[in-house]
Amino acid sequence: MDITTKTAHFTSPLYLESGRILEPYDIAYETYGTLNEDKSNVILICHALSGSHHAAGRYEGDRKPGWWDGLIGEGKAIDTRKYFVICSNVVGSCFGSTGPMSPQYPSNEPYRLKFPVVTVKDMVKAQMNLLSKLGIYRVKSIIGGSMGGMQALQFAVDYPNFAQSIIPLATTYATRPWVIAFNKVAIEAIRRDPRFKNGNYGKDDFKEHGLDGLAVGRIAGHISYLSPDSMDKKFGRNYVPTDGLFELFGRYEVERYMEYNTSNFSKIFDPLSYLYIVKAINTFNLSRGYGSLYEAISRIKAKVNLISFSGDMLFFPQEMEHLAKMLKRNNQAYSYSKIDSDYGHDAFLVEIDKFDFLIKEMLEELE
Amino acid sequence: MDITTKTAHFTSPLYLESGRILEPYDIAYETYGTLNEDKSNVILICHALSGSHHAAGRYEGDRKPGWWDGLIGEGKAIDTRKYFVICSNVVGSCFGSTGPMSPQYPSNEPYRLKFPVVTVKDMVKAQMNLLSKLGIYRVKSIIGGSMGGMQALQFAVDYPNFAQSIIPLATTYATRPWVIAFNKVAIEAIRRDPRFKNGNYGKDDFKEHGLDGLAVGRIAGHISYLSPDSMDKKFGRNYVPTDGLFELFGRYEVERYMEYNTSNFSKIFDPLSYLYIVKAINTFNLSRGYGSLYEAISRIKAKVNLISFSGDMLFFPQEMEHLAKMLKRNNQAYSYSKIDSDYGHDAFLVEIDKFDFLIKEMLEELE
Repeated sequence: MDITTKTAHFTSPLYLESGRILEPYDIAYETYGTLNEDKSNVILICHALSGSHHAAGRYEGDRKPGWWDGLIGEGKAIDTRKYFVICSNVVGSCFGSTGPMSPQYPSNEPYRLKFPVVTVKDMVKAQMNLLSKLGIYRVKSIIGGSMGGMQALQFAVDYPNFAQSIIPLATTYATRPWVIAFNKVAIEAIRRDPRFKNGNYGKDDFKEHGLDGLAVGRIAGHISYLSPDSMDKKFGRNYVPTDGLFELFGRYEVERYMEYNTSNFSKIFDPLSYLYIVKAINTFNLSRGYGSLYEAISRIKAKVNLISFSGDMLFFPQEMEHLAKMLKRNNQAYSYSKIDSDYGHDAFLVEIDKFDFLIKEMLEELE
Repeated sequence: MDITTKTAHFTSPLYLESGRILEPYDIAYETYGTLNEDKSNVILICHALSGSHHAAGRYEGDRKPGWWDGLIGEGKAIDTRKYFVICSNVVGSCFGSTGPMSPQYPSNEPYRLKFPVVTVKDMVKAQMNLLSKLGIYRVKSIIGGSMGGMQALQFAVDYPNFAQSIIPLATTYATRPWVIAFNKVAIEAIRRDPRFKNGNYGKDDFKEHGLDGLAVGRIAGHISYLSPDSMDKKFGRNYVPTDGLFELFGRYEVERYMEYNTSNFSKIFDPLSYLYIVKAINTFNLSRGYGSLYEAISRIKAKVNLISFSGDMLFFPQEMEHLAKMLKRNNQAYSYSKIDSDYGHDAFLVEIDKFDFLIKEMLEELE
């Protein structure tokens, strides 16, 4: 499968929900497959907090493929022989789209904390501009999990004629304080880290070691992405052999997992971007600007295919069930599937074989 | 109600599970009520991670009473007109019992990271020594929640003839990786905080501000003590009025709660003690030393009154149900009550009216 990676540059302003303006701005994006003549085979993929536009395929020499490679590719559920798949990096991120470490035009200095707060609505608006630029005015489906699912929902509400269907997974209609509290660990851990310097760190300060605050905050993240049961299975009460049980800093396997994953993450992710994207998740509320959730939902014309995971400890299945009930009561086209999984929130990334056939069907239904 | 606060000094060694020795050591403790002539009215209360021996009553001038004041006092479920109630501060703590900031005899320098790892078994052994010193060789009941419940269970297994009954609340028989992961946030946040100085901070370094790492770690703690539902009720998506929605560091009420509670906590709790007590919780495993959980449980002669809370997201009701099933299969005296509560783990501290009558009955049954 061919991967095309590009960056689109926009000189006209992006009017943000806050009233502020982002101008100019870049959107990094990736495409897989071929756009057909009448541009009717487009699938938009939206990424989550830590993701990027690199959703599938493998860059030369890379050990790991894109984050949803199990789902996207030739012969896979999102079949790139049939569909033209686009995934873009959200504004605020650190993987190529304009974010807090991008230069604040006309200076060459990064925005840092002067970067405007962006919301899921803003992320969606920027993606609409990208698609317009590509001459795409309608897509078959918008698919995403977690913050990606928020974007799919926001797309369907804000631009009712844009998508034929949306497939939001492991997400919600408005972020609950439970999630905001998990994010709070990261916010405080980053902002209280002296090396963060109130956002004035050097661009290469964390290249080798990563910011401790980000690694610490990310531990809380990983807890919320797993579940008690998945941790029992993955780690149990096993001890890392070299550590003693009675060493103060001796490690259980779950501790090693947390150390390893979070310090790797802190080496590649920018702490300011993390703060801004977490803020976008915290402020996500589908009803904002529409009077009520009911009014927001009523605008949707796309078929809404909701997928939740029974063991999700971050966005609980009840939240998507609430949406399903509203859509049903309102006689809107929808489906709701609850995948039996005790993996936790991360199931949407790692247990693809439990729902890929569903996504395949949902897309075939549109043909 | 009279509060008697004392410290017992022990010159004989405390042999720890690790093979190390604590010598000499102090145990701070508090008593309420009057010991009767045949010493048959003793109730032992065990505290949790952040608790102390100050379980009930109010010190002169204090705004807040002890942590289980709703349960312990004249006319309350644990009626101090009838019972002689003892609560001691665990070894490793920072409220009067010997801990990492106590001087390492014969020097005057604090142990710091040279303090030996203590386990729940060690905490229990130290309390046995305290009670022996007071001439008490049998108690009516041992009651505690969370780490206090671990102690109650450990007492019943290690010293089968000591307690007539135990009442463990919101606890488990072996700490799961889920809990260890939450504790990992605190461990990493503390140890990576430059002001922690690998444990070599000045004794008064955090008096005014508290250690950031401890505050950050404590946010993760508070998440695990609450629940998604309790947070919805307590905070919703409400915003602190003075903060703007589009301020990067603007605060939701749940964020203010976390900031307020955790920075207060970090001012009064010693970070090294926190590391040691968290370690004791992580290493808790009732079966250690007994071949199997079944063998450990089989030793128990006390009646085991288990109380769980349906919304507990730290120690899930299933864990206590597992114990209940073992006791039942084994024909041991037990009761199991699951309190309907969506408050979360903290229910054992704050929803006392939901279970105090149960504790009253459980104690009356012993008369």
